[in-house]
Amino acid sequence: MTIKDVAEKSGVSVSTVSRVLNDHPDVSEKVRERVLAVVDELHYVPNNSARDLIKSEAETIGVIVRGSDNEFFTPVIERIEEEIEKTGYKMAVSRIKAGADEVTAGASLERSKRLSGLIFLGGCFDYTPEQVAMLNVPFVCCTYTNSFGTLDPDRYSSVSIDDYEEARRAVDYLIKRGHKKIAVLLETVDDHSISQLRYKGYLRALEDAGIRPEDDLTEETGYYDMAAAYDGMKRLIERRPDLTAVFTIADSMAIAAMKALHDCGRRVPEDCSVIAIDGIKTSLYTIPTLTTYIQPAREMGAEAVKALIGILKDNKGQIHKRFDTKLRTGGTVKTLE
Amino acid sequence: MTIKDVAEKSGVSVSTVSRVLNDHPDVSEKVRERVLAVVDELHYVPNNSARDLIKSEAETIGVIVRGSDNEFFTPVIERIEEEIEKTGYKMAVSRIKAGADEVTAGASLERSKRLSGLIFLGGCFDYTPEQVAMLNVPFVCCTYTNSFGTLDPDRYSSVSIDDYEEARRAVDYLIKRGHKKIAVLLETVDDHSISQLRYKGYLRALEDAGIRPEDDLTEETGYYDMAAAYDGMKRLIERRPDLTAVFTIADSMAIAAMKALHDCGRRVPEDCSVIAIDGIKTSLYTIPTLTTYIQPAREMGAEAVKALIGILKDNKGQIHKRFDTKLRTGGTVKTLE
Repeated sequence: MTIKDVAEKSGVSVSTVSRVLNDHPDVSEKVRERVLAVVDELHYVPNNSARDLIKSEAETIGVIVRGSDNEFFTPVIERIEEEIEKTGYKMAVSRIKAGADEVTAGASLERSKRLSGLIFLGGCFDYTPEQVAMLNVPFVCCTYTNSFGTLDPDRYSSVSIDDYEEARRAVDYLIKRGHKKIAVLLETVDDHSISQLRYKGYLRALEDAGIRPEDDLTEETGYYDMAAAYDGMKRLIERRPDLTAVFTIADSMAIAAMKALHDCGRRVPEDCSVIAIDGIKTSLYTIPTLTTYIQPAREMGAEAVKALIGILKDNKGQIHKRFDTKLRTGGTVKTLE
Repeated sequence: MTIKDVAEKSGVSVSTVSRVLNDHPDVSEKVRERVLAVVDELHYVPNNSARDLIKSEAETIGVIVRGSDNEFFTPVIERIEEEIEKTGYKMAVSRIKAGADEVTAGASLERSKRLSGLIFLGGCFDYTPEQVAMLNVPFVCCTYTNSFGTLDPDRYSSVSIDDYEEARRAVDYLIKRGHKKIAVLLETVDDHSISQLRYKGYLRALEDAGIRPEDDLTEETGYYDMAAAYDGMKRLIERRPDLTAVFTIADSMAIAAMKALHDCGRRVPEDCSVIAIDGIKTSLYTIPTLTTYIQPAREMGAEAVKALIGILKDNKGQIHKRFDTKLRTGGTVKTLE
């Protein structure tokens, strides 16, 4: 069955059939109807046989990006795209809001695009087997893992840093420089997410140093947003004017916190030190440059694709890879005398 | 022709056929082959008739985003997505690098997704009829227009600010505050793009005020990038230590320029004023807050979708809409005595 058969039976040229199939405007409604009737009658599928169609649609990797304005994801997505392109798979991206349900979005994309596999960029850390049961293809959690969930490690792959450990290191960096009144700026302390993990790292560093955590040095912004971080930092300063340092769980929050400190008449780092985790491009341009633990964003993107291809093509098992961050010593941390 | 016919002829259950069609792993290779052979034989197209398939795939609007790490596009894309969702169309996004050819990318997406229409987010300003001939669906230039090209206004729609006029206003703002030695930081002066338009606005403002433009106050970074803007600003300061202000053609370049000024020991605005156009979120958090002309990003996204739907559904003509910017008075411009 070819386009020629359709053209012949419709009594029009091949190029007219092509225009109808591609929905071009320059075909009369009458001709369009006639061609489509023949297409139906002959069960003609444009370009591919039905079998090819199924096959080609299956060769797609879906990427669900949660939180569309997260600068940290930009290099991760770029690298995922580059790596998927090398494999010959197609890539289908779906962007969802920060609080949306990535598993449902993934399942929906899986059905509409007949995916071979999924990469989640940002998502919950507490999946249950029941929740992910609607996913029928292998999936990789990219930049996070199932820390609070009950999934069997063989059910999924993950590529991330060790959020708990890196937060512990960042706060320890402040403690080693003489800070004791260290605030933490985060989303929530118990959201089963990156925020909770980094909060636990903060607590652990204090505990290891024999510093008692103080409730009013913890500021929950409620959501991941620069405006919320700015307001949160202002509340912290008002509540605890004696604080000497703040650990923010993300670079973007640190940028907003530095602005709040400035607007409250505090100099960074002379009056207050700031440290974070992420390493987004913009934090290179704060004044002073932000001291932060840089996540290997591009490497994690590559590893996520590699993990998925390993499962799909090479019969490999699920992997769970933790990357180290790299400290960038900026100018936002002061050593106390 | 239904999935039941395929199941019957293959001698397997309907759910087995479904698993094969959805490429699930839990089917033996032998059964898979048999089912696919029947699918081929019967020309069975899963879920939809061939005609439905053509129809449903046609109801997609393609969005080509040029320059994947441009923060300015984030709210534009978000709004485009919201508006397309309301219309019942599907949305297919393709992201390309800053220098890539959006027309070819659009034509390719048009074919693979059988698009109804296209929105270009970022692109060239000098299309010729020959170049866009490969596009067979209506298209909207979003955040730019065909200023340097030869397209008939009836061939396309556009939604943007008046880049020339807004740049003229920004530089005039500096002149009115006593500045005469005003540098401009841009990509290139003759790239037939936003950079050239805003450069012309800069020249016009100087001319209107009787200020002779000086070549060595113009710094071309070569490409749109914060690191390039940082280096460019350093060269400007070295070459013209007497400059009192800089107009950067984008907020992100202004953020990098402010860092370069700081690193060269210049205070903003005491030693050098900075003004820009865009109004990205991050420029709210520079110290001092960036004085900039805010583009109505979300409104432009909505208007682009409205223009396209008007053409596709309501038989309306092409539109060319110019939006005004809104000045945000930050703290980066000093009035000279």
